[in-house]
Amino acid sequence: MVDILHRIATTTATPQAMYDALTTVDGLAGWWTQDTTGDAGLGGKVEFRFPDGGFVMEVEELRPSERVVWRVVDGPEEWVGTTVEWDLRQDGGWTVLLFAHRGWREPVEFMHHCSTKWATFLQSLKALVEGADAAPSPRDVKIDNWN
Amino acid sequence: MVDILHRIATTTATPQAMYDALTTVDGLAGWWTQDTTGDAGLGGKVEFRFPDGGFVMEVEELRPSERVVWRVVDGPEEWVGTTVEWDLRQDGGWTVLLFAHRGWREPVEFMHHCSTKWATFLQSLKALVEGADAAPSPRDVKIDNWN
Repeated sequence: MVDILHRIATTTATPQAMYDALTTVDGLAGWWTQDTTGDAGLGGKVEFRFPDGGFVMEVEELRPSERVVWRVVDGPEEWVGTTVEWDLRQDGGWTVLLFAHRGWREPVEFMHHCSTKWATFLQSLKALVEGADAAPSPRDVKIDNWN
Repeated sequence: MVDILHRIATTTATPQAMYDALTTVDGLAGWWTQDTTGDAGLGGKVEFRFPDGGFVMEVEELRPSERVVWRVVDGPEEWVGTTVEWDLRQDGGWTVLLFAHRGWREPVEFMHHCSTKWATFLQSLKALVEGADAAPSPRDVKIDNWN
């Protein structure tokens, strides 16, 4: 099992503000994909659609301003059954976010792609909570021939 | 042992052009850090300096337009002994780069940071070979309180 790991931080948004961007449909639509629908509450399912596919996440854990865990219940076969974990904390004047997409069965080329792509979306999330220009799909940053 | 993986691709630069950006001091200074010095030839050591530290890489493998491998011989303790691998190929009209920073002993928080930071530098490399604005240090994209 292999994981994708990332980290961002900001001085201009609270853990609560970042948590809201991860736990509301409007927040998620603001940085990941504009085509986000569903129920972002505990046990709910959120659908994230992109021009070429999408993901359905079940919300497994919610700890306000601290932690969010999703389980992938539909999407590319490499994603189904993996988990996406978001850990937030205050560190001095900074709000720090640790990201982990865990449980990949193999470090396939698609995992390389998804790792880089997650980094661009985390930059988009950082921009959103900082009040700058975010880049949710379909105006997301293109990194390669797979998007 | 855990790895950082990434992938970028471009239609506007050849594998040779990307290889040159990875195997010459001028190329490396154009996307990673302006303060790059040393010998980028096989067996040579290249020093990459940043405002708060840096890395020394020994060039372990060079296969023109195909593969570059560095071993980290100086830098943060988490990096020393790890390897950085660059694999290039032509895929239709695309030049595809697979990146792997292998051999981390533990998935420490610094590894989360470095994963996201590598993604921003790979975007900088992509911009450089596409003739757009690259962002080598010290004007690199800041992602968190560690840079």
